[in-house]
Amino acid sequence: MNFASDNAGPMHPSVLQAIVDANTGYEMPYGNDTVMPRVRDMIRTTFEAPEAAVYLVATGTAANALALSTYTNSWDTIYAHSVSHVEEDECGAPNFYSNGAKLTLVEGDGAKMTPENLRRAITKTGATDVHAAQRGPVTLTQATEVGTLYSVEEIAQITNVAKDYGLKTHLDGARFANACAALGCTAAEMTWKAGIDMLSFGGTKNGCAGVEAVIFFDPEKAWEFELRRKRGAHLFSKHRFLAAQMEAYLRDNLWLELGAKANANCARLVKGLQDIEGAEIPDTPQANMVFAHLPRAAHRRAKEAGAQYYLFPLDVSLNGPDDELIRCRMVCDWNKTNAEIDQLVNLLCG
Amino acid sequence: MNFASDNAGPMHPSVLQAIVDANTGYEMPYGNDTVMPRVRDMIRTTFEAPEAAVYLVATGTAANALALSTYTNSWDTIYAHSVSHVEEDECGAPNFYSNGAKLTLVEGDGAKMTPENLRRAITKTGATDVHAAQRGPVTLTQATEVGTLYSVEEIAQITNVAKDYGLKTHLDGARFANACAALGCTAAEMTWKAGIDMLSFGGTKNGCAGVEAVIFFDPEKAWEFELRRKRGAHLFSKHRFLAAQMEAYLRDNLWLELGAKANANCARLVKGLQDIEGAEIPDTPQANMVFAHLPRAAHRRAKEAGAQYYLFPLDVSLNGPDDELIRCRMVCDWNKTNAEIDQLVNLLCG
Amino acid sequence: MNFASDNAGPMHPSVLQAIVDANTGYEMPYGNDTVMPRVRDMIRTTFEAPEAAVYLVATGTAANALALSTYTNSWDTIYAHSVSHVEEDECGAPNFYSNGAKLTLVEGDGAKMTPENLRRAITKTGATDVHAAQRGPVTLTQATEVGTLYSVEEIAQITNVAKDYGLKTHLDGARFANACAALGCTAAEMTWKAGIDMLSFGGTKNGCAGVEAVIFFDPEKAWEFELRRKRGAHLFSKHRFLAAQMEAYLRDNLWLELGAKANANCARLVKGLQDIEGAEIPDTPQANMVFAHLPRAAHRRAKEAGAQYYLFPLDVSLNGPDDELIRCRMVCDWNKTNAEIDQLVNLLCG
Amino acid sequence: MNFASDNAGPMHPSVLQAIVDANTGYEMPYGNDTVMPRVRDMIRTTFEAPEAAVYLVATGTAANALALSTYTNSWDTIYAHSVSHVEEDECGAPNFYSNGAKLTLVEGDGAKMTPENLRRAITKTGATDVHAAQRGPVTLTQATEVGTLYSVEEIAQITNVAKDYGLKTHLDGARFANACAALGCTAAEMTWKAGIDMLSFGGTKNGCAGVEAVIFFDPEKAWEFELRRKRGAHLFSKHRFLAAQMEAYLRDNLWLELGAKANANCARLVKGLQDIEGAEIPDTPQANMVFAHLPRAAHRRAKEAGAQYYLFPLDVSLNGPDDELIRCRMVCDWNKTNAEIDQLVNLLCG
Repeated sequence: MNFASDNAGPMHPSVLQAIVDANTGYEMPYGNDTVMPRVRDMIRTTFEAPEAAVYLVATGTAANALALSTYTNSWDTIYAHSVSHVEEDECGAPNFYSNGAKLTLVEGDGAKMTPENLRRAITKTGATDVHAAQRGPVTLTQATEVGTLYSVEEIAQITNVAKDYGLKTHLDGARFANACAALGCTAAEMTWKAGIDMLSFGGTKNGCAGVEAVIFFDPEKAWEFELRRKRGAHLFSKHRFLAAQMEAYLRDNLWLELGAKANANCARLVKGLQDIEGAEIPDTPQANMVFAHLPRAAHRRAKEAGAQYYLFPLDVSLNGPDDELIRCRMVCDWNKTNAEIDQLVNLLCG
Repeated sequence: MNFASDNAGPMHPSVLQAIVDANTGYEMPYGNDTVMPRVRDMIRTTFEAPEAAVYLVATGTAANALALSTYTNSWDTIYAHSVSHVEEDECGAPNFYSNGAKLTLVEGDGAKMTPENLRRAITKTGATDVHAAQRGPVTLTQATEVGTLYSVEEIAQITNVAKDYGLKTHLDGARFANACAALGCTAAEMTWKAGIDMLSFGGTKNGCAGVEAVIFFDPEKAWEFELRRKRGAHLFSKHRFLAAQMEAYLRDNLWLELGAKANANCARLVKGLQDIEGAEIPDTPQANMVFAHLPRAAHRRAKEAGAQYYLFPLDVSLNGPDDELIRCRMVCDWNKTNAEIDQLVNLLCG
Repeated sequence: MNFASDNAGPMHPSVLQAIVDANTGYEMPYGNDTVMPRVRDMIRTTFEAPEAAVYLVATGTAANALALSTYTNSWDTIYAHSVSHVEEDECGAPNFYSNGAKLTLVEGDGAKMTPENLRRAITKTGATDVHAAQRGPVTLTQATEVGTLYSVEEIAQITNVAKDYGLKTHLDGARFANACAALGCTAAEMTWKAGIDMLSFGGTKNGCAGVEAVIFFDPEKAWEFELRRKRGAHLFSKHRFLAAQMEAYLRDNLWLELGAKANANCARLVKGLQDIEGAEIPDTPQANMVFAHLPRAAHRRAKEAGAQYYLFPLDVSLNGPDDELIRCRMVCDWNKTNAEIDQLVNLLCG
Repeated sequence: MNFASDNAGPMHPSVLQAIVDANTGYEMPYGNDTVMPRVRDMIRTTFEAPEAAVYLVATGTAANALALSTYTNSWDTIYAHSVSHVEEDECGAPNFYSNGAKLTLVEGDGAKMTPENLRRAITKTGATDVHAAQRGPVTLTQATEVGTLYSVEEIAQITNVAKDYGLKTHLDGARFANACAALGCTAAEMTWKAGIDMLSFGGTKNGCAGVEAVIFFDPEKAWEFELRRKRGAHLFSKHRFLAAQMEAYLRDNLWLELGAKANANCARLVKGLQDIEGAEIPDTPQANMVFAHLPRAAHRRAKEAGAQYYLFPLDVSLNGPDDELIRCRMVCDWNKTNAEIDQLVNLLCG
């Protein structure tokens, strides 16, 4: 019963098999393997973007930090929501990779920045004054860190604000598949057709062992990215094992299938949580993750039975009034069984 | 016939099997998996270093740059041979991770710095003058980038110079296994017993898919390293797949067995090369790599038959006088067969 | 009628004379001049801090960024008010000098952070989690960027919060003299006696041409600071001209006298502004600077007569309804005459 | 008798007077003073470069590091002689300001790189390989750190090599005036007409208190430089005092007059040194600085009489054989008198 994170689960069998299959004979290293051209083509097809520059790295933080840094001067500020991976969970990697750029936090409910708040933040930055940090790119997270979604229209509204000021836009798509499956839109519709310039396309949380694609819909800075990736020590010598994962992940839209499966698992879990007396779920879960406020007694039962998920604050005590609500996060990956979900729900319901 | 690099070959079956075996169920992410404690213990045992801090990353450049940066102030200079991975092949990653430290090149034959040259370089740096870069760590490569080896005694002589000035020492052990097997010494003898403070212990070139251990024999900066690894985006969420590789690599000293096998393959190759008329091999190969000067005609025959290895300069033409010697690099991994080696030799001999 | 900034005015005659006097013969460079030991002694006496490490630089941004960076790891975050020079007016210099650290904004009225908000921000940062930026120093601005003051007690309350978490504290004292004069406290009371660890002690805005002292009350990192200053290109060869300014500035407490004079000038101005019909002054000016909301017509009269001060937004039009309030900033240095102040007030009053 | 450095002497009276004259009334800060446009015009006239972007900073290290960083990516390497200020005497400032770029050392006699060595170094860097540092700008020092000069033709030969690879060129002109006076060429001939793209034009060592101009003959990156200068904390608020110095320095070619005077002073000194029995002067002094090998007894007499200049190594003992040659550096600024020079020579001669 591990609902701690979607990075706690296994590889999908097809991804594992791809690694096994890739382990035959010799391949030129550093991205010059024979698998990568196929991956590049598949991504370009999937995203209807024949010119896109496509690169693989092994962690989501690397994908975000390297992609953003390619369009961030060291004196710029990056616009991001306060509840975002780049702000909260990367130990300053975007600042590091951009040689000291800042982050300007743009708020909005459900971990989603609003176009109005973004415009206000950009205006406040001041483009012409040498004394202030300068305007850098805008980064969105989809699905968000609290499991909500921007609609395609909302993404377009935000990128339109960015474009008004000539700013680039990045989408942190660590859970891109969940978002795409939930919205029922195409990969192109959620990205470049909505004004997104660069994407971190996640595989790790959705059935891969460790692979993320960085996609630039305009390839003008492709070579610079390659230098940044190498300098950041993220260019794999046995790159074929990244490429093999991604190929399996893209084949027959496995990524989308697994994203949908994870969403369905989460929906089943949410339905169960809603039956718990006193439970509150402030942000309606739209993808594969739920933040809920549940009675302490429910948590106590689940935890004592070995369920794994995060409570907030992290060090909150399970000793205390039974009825007091304690915030928690539960995440479902594609691999959860109905039985496991129901078992957790039953424990929580008591 | 791919002799381009030891990172062009496959995983050893045991390493692959470990990945397969690790793909069951859920594991806590970011190094909190159940495999890592075993890996830590095995490395401590292998190195007779019960207090060592042990971390895994996926690339050799990450291991080197992160390890060095932990003991390098941004105003320091790192002492390295001009023919070393940190100087030539990491696109400035050590400079990046150390926030702008310099490299001071220390020469010596066979890609090995001499104690005298190191002492001269350190003395020249000047420790007390605010105007100059300050003295940082010393890094050695073992086996070297040209396939030679420092003896254990030579390592100790160099680390003694470093210690005279209170400087830390790092060993780039991307080919540690080859060196250890060739010298017939223990892992401890080649490292901390010879005065080495931190080690990049390579797995990728020797049967793994992508895993390197960073080992600090003094764990005082362990937490700082963890922050640097995360900030550099090198902390894997599905860390168990790194740990699983390393566990298989360490079990029953597979690493040493594979290193010895690669060395033996190279010895067979070198023996063959020596029979080529006109061939020159300036640095006696001691590990799994040979740099040779061979007649153009020999290269032409091999290349036309599909053999892969590097010529220098990279863009040298195969059209030209048959007898002219052209420099090349050939690398053997553990997976080479005698038949493949002999085939290459036969082609070269004509 | 230039009320744009206290850095728009001239040197005090005594400071100028010190430069003239210093221009005789030869002096060893880079801080080894014969003036600097006297400056060091005077600062130690002024601050009752016989062990303090004292350094001179030429700009306030250099003082802040270099001082902070000495106690900020690149993975840390610095706690600062959103209305502070380090956040708004240094083009990311603190981020640059700290090799990419972040700023966490801590709010409070009148550009003063509150102890409660600071504690909340620190708690939120999380000290033990490798995924987040780590806790760095706290920086206060005194007098603040809107002309208000922390009481000595308020400073102590904030530094106490910092100390609860083992964090260092910095005071941006670009207008330290104004604050000290206004509060009637000693230099020691406003700094180390109130828990401040390091100080940017401003001279430039208060009668000097360009000199700021960086003072570490604990000298443990003095040498590191010297390296950072040199590496940042802020170590002056003809350092005696910095030292001479600072010596004149400290002699007979000229700094305090000029600070008091500037405050008195501002008080006279504020009194005049309060007589303007419709004028609003949200933050009570306590030092040498006032932010006021004045009718457009008042600004129009003043600007047409050549008065210089900033309107907000910077590009606001003077064409428009007469009564509409437009925000402005007016700053007095020590050199303002009553006649000039009254002239401005009269223009504004119409 | 201070011959330690040309930064140990006073301001020229005209420069001091300019500071005094500038200390009247109010001026807008941060380079918006009324003096700077005149300075810009004078430099453009002096250099016959009507489009040049011109900026002032206070230290030579700032001028070099900021200028170079404007054309250096963090993954580049800068080509510099091993005996140069950027390599030896800036504590890594060029590395810091370029966010971690490297320096590649290019040798040649008399602290002058040769075109052949530069070409070899550039070729070795490799432009297309992602694994290596990339090709960045070339920086020359004129006059060199040992008092020699590149001829205008030699500069052109080097910049031609740079241009063959599309690389930018920088001239560290901390002693530009001495070089220009010695060569009898124009400022334009020694810079852009010889292929130089950017210049650090020194004032500090030649009669100013602390001012250097950064000149970009192509202004395309002017705004970026302004951001870099501010972010580096090198934008002065009371900028008029930098501008005033530079204006006096340029007026009636004072800079050239003082450079010539310093050279003449050095020539007189060198003539005297040549009469010392056993003296050796390996590099013929061409500007205002001499490195000589003189008998210990000569140094002993001079030092005991209070003469100041550097011996190498810095800690060499004056106790020892009288005849043993000890290397020294002696520098003359414009302000040396014949009497002072002769006094030193007489002491040395004994």
